[in-house]
This record gives sequence, structure tokens and C-alpha cells, in this order.
Amino acid sequence: MTAARFITLEGGEGAGKSTQLRALAAALRARGLEVVETREPGGSPGAEAIRDLVLTGSADRWSPRAEALLFAAARTDHVERTIRPALQRGAWVVSDRFLDSSRAYQGMGELTDEDILTLHRIGSGGFMPDRTFVLTLPDAEAESRAHIRDGGDSDRIGGRDSAFHHRVTQMFSRFAAMEGDRVRAIDASGDAQAVTARLLEGLDDLLP
Amino acid sequence: MTAARFITLEGGEGAGKSTQLRALAAALRARGLEVVETREPGGSPGAEAIRDLVLTGSADRWSPRAEALLFAAARTDHVERTIRPALQRGAWVVSDRFLDSSRAYQGMGELTDEDILTLHRIGSGGFMPDRTFVLTLPDAEAESRAHIRDGGDSDRIGGRDSAFHHRVTQMFSRFAAMEGDRVRAIDASGDAQAVTARLLEGLDDLLP
Repeated sequence: MTAARFITLEGGEGAGKSTQLRALAAALRARGLEVVETREPGGSPGAEAIRDLVLTGSADRWSPRAEALLFAAARTDHVERTIRPALQRGAWVVSDRFLDSSRAYQGMGELTDEDILTLHRIGSGGFMPDRTFVLTLPDAEAESRAHIRDGGDSDRIGGRDSAFHHRVTQMFSRFAAMEGDRVRAIDASGDAQAVTARLLEGLDDLLP
Repeated sequence: MTAARFITLEGGEGAGKSTQLRALAAALRARGLEVVETREPGGSPGAEAIRDLVLTGSADRWSPRAEALLFAAARTDHVERTIRPALQRGAWVVSDRFLDSSRAYQGMGELTDEDILTLHRIGSGGFMPDRTFVLTLPDAEAESRAHIRDGGDSDRIGGRDSAFHHRVTQMFSRFAAMEGDRVRAIDASGDAQAVTARLLEGLDDLLP
């Protein structure tokens, strides 16, 4: 038996992460693997309770530092209660967002990337995905997709402006450039099935 | 005008922190100072919401690491929204528990004292009290007082056994030994008014 793997999908709003998560999980199941689909923030009862706290309320309800600590607390619970137990019984885990979202969204302002990684070390022992796919779209396409989906309003995080989301996309590209073995940029434009095929190709070295 | 000061009261359950907090605040007000009374976990709307999350539910609802991150998030909000604004307008702040409670309760098991201080640096820039009083009681007296007060049951933290609370007391004594300028152990046995007098004496160098 090959070791179970932990795969994360990252990218800005509208890149198609949730669609691709379902498609990727189905493709892995078709190969006989048990697959747990999860998401962040959330993914375990405690983390979902923290998610409610973080994503509701006015935009300034939480400062960037309080928010980063809440996301790290939620991730700690998610790793301990959902991800590690699944991997230990041999199931693959695919997550819609994980640590790199915190690095991209919170680690580019008041907090440094090093701060975010330190929180993850203290909370989760620095537990990392085996592979991370960053779904990338040209800015214009991402923006129009995000608008179509949520009609212009969104939660505390999604509701920020396009310059913010452009910086997030740049951060993700930087991770792919710096950590090429773990993080792969995937062209998310065009046909959804073609995108799923690209994801599977990107798992070639990890699949049984 | 003398600078406003941030004073914290620490100690195990039953040491009389809340009684002494009210008495100390009253004594400072009698000297013409504006005083804000606050507490942890909590002390601001966001931190109180996190408090509800941390203190309710079963004992194993949160792992020690998730709990430490939640306390640090609450403290970040408390410092930003309540403590710093009060000090900036010239009010003294007295808090029932603060960072040293996290160091004593969470920083003696899976997490190190350094981890707790790192979370505080990332969350609150390492913001420290001007003076911290550790209310100390002989173990037997502390235990009997705690039992009288809550009838034997308590929240997720208070409900732990006496060996746990003994270790907490030892941690507080260690802080007083290591950081004597900030942290002072105060004998909390006997008459409440006498204890308040000891607290005021311990503020001699900070009072106008």
C-alpha cells in the first residue's frame, strides 16, 4: 500500500477550487483510494466554530493579528481532529485552502511570512501538505468569475478589493517559485475536465 | 500627570483575585485615578466571544495547542481594543489574569514558556504589565476556598485536579522569582483589607 497523501488546493476567489476539489476527489476514488474532502477555515467541529467567528461581523471586527491567531487555532484543530486521523487510517485528504492561504492573506501586511510559519509550528508542528496546487487565472477572468458567483458581496475576507486579491495571487505565485517540489501552479482557465487532468498529472509521482 | 499603568492580578483559583481587583480599583479611584477593571480570558467583545468558545464544552474539546492559540487571539483583541485605548487616554487598567496565566496554565505541558511568549510577541508585540501581583495561598487554603466557591464543579479550566493547580501555583512563584521587578508575590491569606493594603504598598513606586 502506498502512503496516504495530503493535497491542498489554493488560489484566489473564483479560481474554481471547490469544483476541482470535488472532481479530484472523484478521480482519486475511481482509482480505489479512500478520500476525505475538507476545507479551511474549518474542516473539524472546533475549526468550523472558529470559522463562524472569523468570517462574520464587520470588516474590522478582528485585527490582522487576532485574525492570524484565530486561523492558526482553527488549523491546529483541523490537523489534529480531521487530517492526521484520516491519513493514519490510510485515507487521502484533499483540502480547499490550508496554510498557504494564511501566508498569502495574512502574511503580507502587518505580519510576516515567518510569523505565519511560526504560528503553524507552534500550533501544528509545522505539518505540511505533500502537494499544493495553486489554481491560477488571469486577473480579469478571476475577477469576473468571483463576481458572478457571489454577486459582488461576500464574507469578511472575500469582500476586499481587487488590488488586495491581485497581491494574494502574487503571493501564491511566489510560493510556487520558492517551493517548487511541494507547490505547483496549475492553469485553471478553460474546460474544468482539462484542469482536473492537469491536477492528476501533477500527482503522478505520488499516486500508486 | 503620571503615566497610566497596567496592573495584573494572577494566582490559582480561590486566591481572591476578583475581590482584590474590585478593592484595588476602588482604592486607586479614591486617589483620583480613572480605573478600568477587566479580565481574561475576555475583556473586549471579540475576546469574550473567544472566551465562550474556550471555556464551554467537554474537557477535551480543544487540545492544549489550539487552546493556547485561542487564548493568544483573545489577548490580542483585549490589548488592542480595551487595554491600550484606556492607557492612551490616561486611565489605569487592572486585569484579573493576563499573559502569566497562559504561561502558567498552557506553558507547562506540551507548549514551552518560550512558545507562549512567542505567541504574545506575534499577537500583541510582547506588551507587558507594569506590575503583576501573584496572590499566593497555602495549597490547602486555596483548595478549600475554590471548593466553597464553585461547589466542586467549574469550567473547562477550573475543573482540573489539585495536582494541576499545585503546578500552576509553582509556575507563578517561578515568575516572581525570575522577574522580580514586574512580578510580586503577595500573601493572600487572612483579612481582605490587609491584602489590599499589601497590593497598594506594592504599587508605591508607580503611584503619583
